[in-house]
Amino acid sequence: MEKMKVGFVGLGIMGKPMAGHILRAGFPLTVYNRTRAKADDLGREGAVVADSPAEVGAKSDVTITMVSDTPDVDQVIAGPAGILEGVRPGSVVVDMSTVSPELERRLDGKLREKGCSLLDAPVSGGDVGARNATLAIMAGGDRGAFDRVLPIFQVMGKTITYCGPVGSGQLTKLCNQILVSVNLLAVSEALVFARKNGLDPLTMIQAVSGGAAASWQLLNLGPKIAKRDFQPGFMVDLMQKDLRLILETATANPTPLPAAALVQQLFKSVQIKGLGREGTQALAKALEALSGI
Amino acid sequence: MEKMKVGFVGLGIMGKPMAGHILRAGFPLTVYNRTRAKADDLGREGAVVADSPAEVGAKSDVTITMVSDTPDVDQVIAGPAGILEGVRPGSVVVDMSTVSPELERRLDGKLREKGCSLLDAPVSGGDVGARNATLAIMAGGDRGAFDRVLPIFQVMGKTITYCGPVGSGQLTKLCNQILVSVNLLAVSEALVFARKNGLDPLTMIQAVSGGAAASWQLLNLGPKIAKRDFQPGFMVDLMQKDLRLILETATANPTPLPAAALVQQLFKSVQIKGLGREGTQALAKALEALSGI
Repeated sequence: MEKMKVGFVGLGIMGKPMAGHILRAGFPLTVYNRTRAKADDLGREGAVVADSPAEVGAKSDVTITMVSDTPDVDQVIAGPAGILEGVRPGSVVVDMSTVSPELERRLDGKLREKGCSLLDAPVSGGDVGARNATLAIMAGGDRGAFDRVLPIFQVMGKTITYCGPVGSGQLTKLCNQILVSVNLLAVSEALVFARKNGLDPLTMIQAVSGGAAASWQLLNLGPKIAKRDFQPGFMVDLMQKDLRLILETATANPTPLPAAALVQQLFKSVQIKGLGREGTQALAKALEALSGI
Repeated sequence: MEKMKVGFVGLGIMGKPMAGHILRAGFPLTVYNRTRAKADDLGREGAVVADSPAEVGAKSDVTITMVSDTPDVDQVIAGPAGILEGVRPGSVVVDMSTVSPELERRLDGKLREKGCSLLDAPVSGGDVGARNATLAIMAGGDRGAFDRVLPIFQVMGKTITYCGPVGSGQLTKLCNQILVSVNLLAVSEALVFARKNGLDPLTMIQAVSGGAAASWQLLNLGPKIAKRDFQPGFMVDLMQKDLRLILETATANPTPLPAAALVQQLFKSVQIKGLGREGTQALAKALEALSGI
């Protein structure tokens, strides 16, 4: 069976290793990146380097986008020389960025006018997951399109879930981020409570992490907070982008989310202190400041 | 080596199976319970049934208490015919209830006047953990006393942690409950957000539970909320007792805990609806009510 022709737009810290996995799995690959040097790296490995997203769309059965924020996705798909200008009927565009579910529905509508469709398939697992091909991929859109693209998802990720109609991937990713950020708030409050009351933080974490209090955030970021390691696994500024998407979606379809709103406000105080590029575990500093630590 | 003589006061849903493990491990056991029938059950298995906590204290090297709330602990240890009236110098009292750290310090002071000491050693793992001897035990107090009592802890629990001076067990348990309740709030918000936006809740849970969003609460209580199963693993009313202890301790030693305070307020609305005896996962109903579901 002939391999699908794949296109990839956006070769940043996530996109470049993801595109590399696709190339090494033997899919013919066309790439585009605003800063051409990153595309040329993949060019030397055998990818075709295109001059525009439109050209990528024209050469691909499946075109993947992985860019920073909602306006960037809109631009590379629906902007001048965007994918929409090049796509061939029957092809699939897969947006793996984390952006507004509403934009995905809108872009899907535009693609359907050209006989194509959109999958929204954001990921979790960060740059480590991208490099190790262990991403969780949460996909929404046409089920048939999902099944066609699945072999490509499988070279980039570990847990791949079909979540429902277009937008469902983003909505699931936003659920993921509610859980991540509010669990981290739990960790931050427990650690500041421990510290104010003279407990050794690492002993506390060890004592509680075998049971109902356990979470990925506690096991992975709790010890970093205890050891004052605020290097970013995932940056505060990026979490704020996701919390903004959550709260916008929860405004459009009114859903009071008091804890998500609280954590967004506390992250704002971390940003005000100039720590937006630290890891999300810097949330603990906001709690410590409240406690006069 | 002769086995330590053990006493056990409080044979409720937790205490009775815990005392049973001690008895079956071969420790000579004296028991007391306000409702004598429960003590008689253990009497038929070979325990001595005493007429008062004081009598238990007089017959034991290590006397364990496992009762409901702060005033009950105060009563069985320092009240009329309490353990303090019977204890022999050199013995250890171990309170395994979840109560105020401050009370434990006070009782330790009184016991020291009699040449004894207190370990505070609350547990997590619920009645299932008590029956299966898989409790997490978080202990505070004199390190030498902890080492002596460790063989008894080992027949009741799996993860046993020495947390520091007296009160540290309770403080660690309170950290545990901050994590448990705020993680559950995260699960409740993610599920109400999913439901309002048309996602299948079980698919969402499956999609996110392999990564940074994972928690015990998500994996264990998330599916119960999705399936509308509000049977108690741990009751709302008991969680409120623990949140009260957390917020009292955070008032005495001022520590702003906005998320713990928020979850306590939301549980209050669950109680107002008459659902205090449902499982803590009924927290989701408070979020659903806010969203008009």
